[in-house]
Amino acid sequence: MEVLKNKFITIKAHVEDAPQECMFELKTQIILGLLEPESNGVIVKCLYASIDPAQINRMKTQCSSQTSVAPASKITPGMMISGSGVGRVVASKHPDFQKNDIVYGSLEWAEYTIFKNGNMLWKLDTKEFPLSYHIGVFGTSGLTAYGGFFHICKPKKGEKVFVSAAAGSVGNLVGQYAKLFGCYVVGCAGSKQKVDLLKGKLGFDDAFNYKEDVDLKSTIQRYFPDGIDIYFDNVGGEMLEAAIANMNNFGRVAACGAMSDYTNSGKRATLNMMDVTYKRITIKGFLSLDFSSEYIKDFISTTTDYVRAGELCVLEDISHGIESIPYAFNGLFQGRNIGKQIVQISEE
Amino acid sequence: MEVLKNKFITIKAHVEDAPQECMFELKTQIILGLLEPESNGVIVKCLYASIDPAQINRMKTQCSSQTSVAPASKITPGMMISGSGVGRVVASKHPDFQKNDIVYGSLEWAEYTIFKNGNMLWKLDTKEFPLSYHIGVFGTSGLTAYGGFFHICKPKKGEKVFVSAAAGSVGNLVGQYAKLFGCYVVGCAGSKQKVDLLKGKLGFDDAFNYKEDVDLKSTIQRYFPDGIDIYFDNVGGEMLEAAIANMNNFGRVAACGAMSDYTNSGKRATLNMMDVTYKRITIKGFLSLDFSSEYIKDFISTTTDYVRAGELCVLEDISHGIESIPYAFNGLFQGRNIGKQIVQISEE
Repeated sequence: MEVLKNKFITIKAHVEDAPQECMFELKTQIILGLLEPESNGVIVKCLYASIDPAQINRMKTQCSSQTSVAPASKITPGMMISGSGVGRVVASKHPDFQKNDIVYGSLEWAEYTIFKNGNMLWKLDTKEFPLSYHIGVFGTSGLTAYGGFFHICKPKKGEKVFVSAAAGSVGNLVGQYAKLFGCYVVGCAGSKQKVDLLKGKLGFDDAFNYKEDVDLKSTIQRYFPDGIDIYFDNVGGEMLEAAIANMNNFGRVAACGAMSDYTNSGKRATLNMMDVTYKRITIKGFLSLDFSSEYIKDFISTTTDYVRAGELCVLEDISHGIESIPYAFNGLFQGRNIGKQIVQISEE
Repeated sequence: MEVLKNKFITIKAHVEDAPQECMFELKTQIILGLLEPESNGVIVKCLYASIDPAQINRMKTQCSSQTSVAPASKITPGMMISGSGVGRVVASKHPDFQKNDIVYGSLEWAEYTIFKNGNMLWKLDTKEFPLSYHIGVFGTSGLTAYGGFFHICKPKKGEKVFVSAAAGSVGNLVGQYAKLFGCYVVGCAGSKQKVDLLKGKLGFDDAFNYKEDVDLKSTIQRYFPDGIDIYFDNVGGEMLEAAIANMNNFGRVAACGAMSDYTNSGKRATLNMMDVTYKRITIKGFLSLDFSSEYIKDFISTTTDYVRAGELCVLEDISHGIESIPYAFNGLFQGRNIGKQIVQISEE
């Protein structure tokens, strides 16, 4: 195995607005499957790729300081697109990895990813759970939900929690963690099917379809007659404005994402700063990469227990084949996905 | 002394926009200067009244839930207007207070304030400092600056601090505390005179006149080429937007006030929530009334030491006579005051 044909997905031009399938293309490169001896290099065949809305922010023309995304992570046309993934080692010169090991790491939206140094790969225990769980409920989505809710929002039992994009990869887990912890949880989503899922299978106390309501502020007030204590914000824009208007004193907002800012589909949140001051509201931006390894251990241990006991429902939306990535990515912005969007690139 | 003529200031109608002098009137009431025996009552003659921008929020028609100001503190036309003040006891049935004691408390914008129960008055030590200091540097303005900066912003030495309305009652103290603590401090204000004062007498590292600059975002960038770590926000609106755009990772915003939201003179801040998330910015609203008595002791002790040593410059803007209150209050919104706006209502 010295020469590999490697199919990968790239952008044709920078993506400024909601991504369309035609903005992407499938390319093929020829790579050498040989690694330098004693190089610590690893070649990984991608099995499951994580498809996340925030990846669009790296595809924009102005990706660095203007949008606060680190310049190093900028994606230019023709370049490979990285994201978290689970794969199988096909070649390794790294002492920690052997052929056929299953690993987690930052993989390309490609059939193969070559690591000159495999130090940023983690070997996975493959016995108990489906491999895809490691990029969803046990991966960045899970950690974002867990750390964002517990560490950033510092909930108390009985508090009232509002989650937007509640059927999304992070939102559905936030709501479930909050319920397991003993909070009152209402989620919003963009279809009846999602609302039914939240109220049914996921056990939210209530949920509503934001597309059916003209006045978000009074809709939220109906669901929270006693106000919101915690708002887990995945969308920004008008939903954030309406949530702030309904927050209680000492309310907390976890600023996890701003879907409506990622593309120009929505408008930015115009904040009532008097509300923020008088109600002593805290709005806190965070990224999962800041959580310590100690904290991550705690997250994995708690979440494993919940999943094992069947208390946490794992929602995955898996499409198949590298060719399906553009459609799957577009679906995030159309609200097609339910739960974590994953593309299975190769058979296990 | 059984009957007192009591002059007081009130609003003619609810005040929705920048307050004009003609919106206020001076009225006179006749009050009995007699207190019920064993009533704990106290009558206080006001010497110095604190004039604060936030008082306008209580004068609006929609003052309660819509603007998050407690309904109890709402001011209706014809009613007296309370604020912090220093006064002299003229009659007391309270065991802790005697005639001629100097006290601090919530006094009316009036010559006399009657307390049915004097438990919310504090006797002042009058020996060392001018009495007016107790409603400024040692009062709510000082506590807001001290607690807002140290407790809310959690500064580290060497961090870069931006203060808006920096020549105002709170802003000037924030900047001075930050300099004494070892931060790099830039303030903005609305006139050359104020800017000179900040850079000269108050020892700010730099300052600028925001009225002279069209593009706040690039102006701030010029003053903070390495970004802002802490923004102490007294104004909201476009200044907040421009500050957020220039903030460093893990930056903190103390949402102390939103002058541009208080009246309709400015526009609300349209926040870039992607910046908030990616840069892990915390925006935190706070009110000085939440600080514990332990914390207040610490504030008083530190601040007294600084003032005594001449390290903290006390900026007061004192006008005279109860009739001058409407002009003084209007001046806050015109930017006329330099430092703490006070009205001396009676001679000591």
